[in-house]
Amino acid sequence: MIIGIPKETCPGECRVGLVPQNVSALVKKGRSVMIERGAGLAAGHSDDAYAAAGATLADRSAVFEQADIIVQVQTPGLNLKTGDSDLAELPSNKILVGMMDPLANPEFAQTLAAKQVTGVAMELIPRITRAQAMDVLSSNAMIVGYKAVLIGASELASMFPMNMTAAGTLNPARVFIMGVGVAGLQACATAKRLGAVVEAYDVRPAAREQILSVGAKPVELNIQAEDTESAGGYAKEQSAEFIKAQQAAMADVLAQQDVVITTAAVPGKKSPILVTAEMVKSMKPGAVIIDLAAEKGGNCELTQLGEVVIENGVKIIGPNNLASTVATHASQMYGKNIENLLNHLITEDGKLNLDFEDEIIRETVVSINGDVPHPRMRDLLGLP
Amino acid sequence: MIIGIPKETCPGECRVGLVPQNVSALVKKGRSVMIERGAGLAAGHSDDAYAAAGATLADRSAVFEQADIIVQVQTPGLNLKTGDSDLAELPSNKILVGMMDPLANPEFAQTLAAKQVTGVAMELIPRITRAQAMDVLSSNAMIVGYKAVLIGASELASMFPMNMTAAGTLNPARVFIMGVGVAGLQACATAKRLGAVVEAYDVRPAAREQILSVGAKPVELNIQAEDTESAGGYAKEQSAEFIKAQQAAMADVLAQQDVVITTAAVPGKKSPILVTAEMVKSMKPGAVIIDLAAEKGGNCELTQLGEVVIENGVKIIGPNNLASTVATHASQMYGKNIENLLNHLITEDGKLNLDFEDEIIRETVVSINGDVPHPRMRDLLGLP
Repeated sequence: MIIGIPKETCPGECRVGLVPQNVSALVKKGRSVMIERGAGLAAGHSDDAYAAAGATLADRSAVFEQADIIVQVQTPGLNLKTGDSDLAELPSNKILVGMMDPLANPEFAQTLAAKQVTGVAMELIPRITRAQAMDVLSSNAMIVGYKAVLIGASELASMFPMNMTAAGTLNPARVFIMGVGVAGLQACATAKRLGAVVEAYDVRPAAREQILSVGAKPVELNIQAEDTESAGGYAKEQSAEFIKAQQAAMADVLAQQDVVITTAAVPGKKSPILVTAEMVKSMKPGAVIIDLAAEKGGNCELTQLGEVVIENGVKIIGPNNLASTVATHASQMYGKNIENLLNHLITEDGKLNLDFEDEIIRETVVSINGDVPHPRMRDLLGLP
Repeated sequence: MIIGIPKETCPGECRVGLVPQNVSALVKKGRSVMIERGAGLAAGHSDDAYAAAGATLADRSAVFEQADIIVQVQTPGLNLKTGDSDLAELPSNKILVGMMDPLANPEFAQTLAAKQVTGVAMELIPRITRAQAMDVLSSNAMIVGYKAVLIGASELASMFPMNMTAAGTLNPARVFIMGVGVAGLQACATAKRLGAVVEAYDVRPAAREQILSVGAKPVELNIQAEDTESAGGYAKEQSAEFIKAQQAAMADVLAQQDVVITTAAVPGKKSPILVTAEMVKSMKPGAVIIDLAAEKGGNCELTQLGEVVIENGVKIIGPNNLASTVATHASQMYGKNIENLLNHLITEDGKLNLDFEDEIIRETVVSINGDVPHPRMRDLLGLP
């Protein structure tokens, strides 16, 4: 069973599917790993390091031809920039493992099915305890939450911590986190570490304890919450009425902040607008918004993906592929997530074992034997 | 006694000479403050805020003509880009207060003297207890040390803190601070806050306690230190032999680091090279050097002011006017430093009092009555 790692092709993507540490572990289990020359360089891993770990270095075409399982960070389902050319290189009858934005781009599963490729979508790893070590979305979210705070601190014209100096007291920055999943909690913890006064809000009542646990203060809005948590632990999509009431109460909170980090994502859907253009007007000039939902339309009405918008002196930043800017740690986690999944897919004696009785397999395999078996994806595709 | 604040003209300079808080305090003491429209905007202060504090808003030419004391952040002595046009606007018989790089550019004092302008150089505020509240270099250094860590953290492809995740343990970053004056100590404290493993080095043995006090680990080099601390509390210039021995021992330390921040400045001189091109070769690919001495030639041999140089995978960053990127807090401190100095220069009943028996006056006035009275500057200028 040969595992192949082509170099990522999406512009700006610095991550890699496996790091040398994962290669050694897989080789020790009897797997073969073939990696395209230079694939790990941008993540800090030389070809020599991969060779020393037991990988075979190869040309891109050899990786696609000879590997049984192709591992990418961004498969063509997610990579809309250069994915088509990747797809053209992918032979039939392979297994493709990686991120493929399956709920927003379910058509990609059909494309794979038509090509007789088995697609395994890492975004669909179920949020159950035994799959935690394969959960790429949590890995990404941790990095993204950390990096958002660094962007906020770098862009703000004040320092985060309070400082008592000979030239007077410098007030600490006020940082507000909207949505406290993994990214939001990591943002709270990082902003707190840096010395800011940190508040946070989430529609899920259970978030209160989590906010307190990282040293931040939960913001309470006096509005009636609906049923807010879905089975997977994600925040559920809310009704229009609820969102309107939430926005009104939120405007006052936003007016006091120096840095606002928004993290509200609903899997497969456009992100909810939490910060309207009107609310931005009430914010302090010099305030900074980092919209972590920018890739999914944004939580702020004014966000432009990959750009910095300045409106009434408020900077609105819509970062693109933030995880890639922390490529070494991001690849370490991604590689470990992949290694764990591969060990789940492949038996001790090296056979592929796609047992659909198993929840992890059932939830992540989006195409197999020319078909899309995944009920949720069939639903999105309008298939019976 | 009218105090005038023109808008800064140096490209990228966002600070302002006084903030509204300083204006109220000065007005309460009976001073008049005249400020150029828009002067505080980039630092987060509107014209309305200045007017509410009691300042008169005016055109640039009116500020220069009517004020008795002109306060700038960058006077033409420091501002080599647009300083000449500022100088052309400055009438004779004024008092000019601000930063003017007096030890590197002593000729500027002669220019002011020829113009019958009294120059007060903020960089020369003596490091004595009663002048601490006027010490702009300490104020700047604090900001610059903080910001250097944010740059390092943002540029590094790993996170600073250790993280125990479901996908394995992420090692903390190793950060090394060279030179622990105010900037270096602030860098230590900030990197420590963010969760890095922080080590620091300074030629002054007294620095050991200071390094420990901010939670960092002092690095010891087994070389004989010379007399290392000058009267002003700055590190003294070292001999060539000492620097060579220091460099040899340092190479091994540098090879282990992810982020290196260098802060060694000798007032009025080119900065010492602490990190040679050879040492950079021994560093890890992906490591980041932030050279805070870039404006004075740099502590790293490869530094280019205002640029990012990449050599063997090591990023060498030479920031320019970092304090201006934190313009709100930087202006708050600068304004307070200036307010304190003005209160020292001006008597309760509003008369100028330049008493040369006073150390603060003697050390900071670089030109008066058509002459350069300052002994150290006369020495640099070759005057008897």
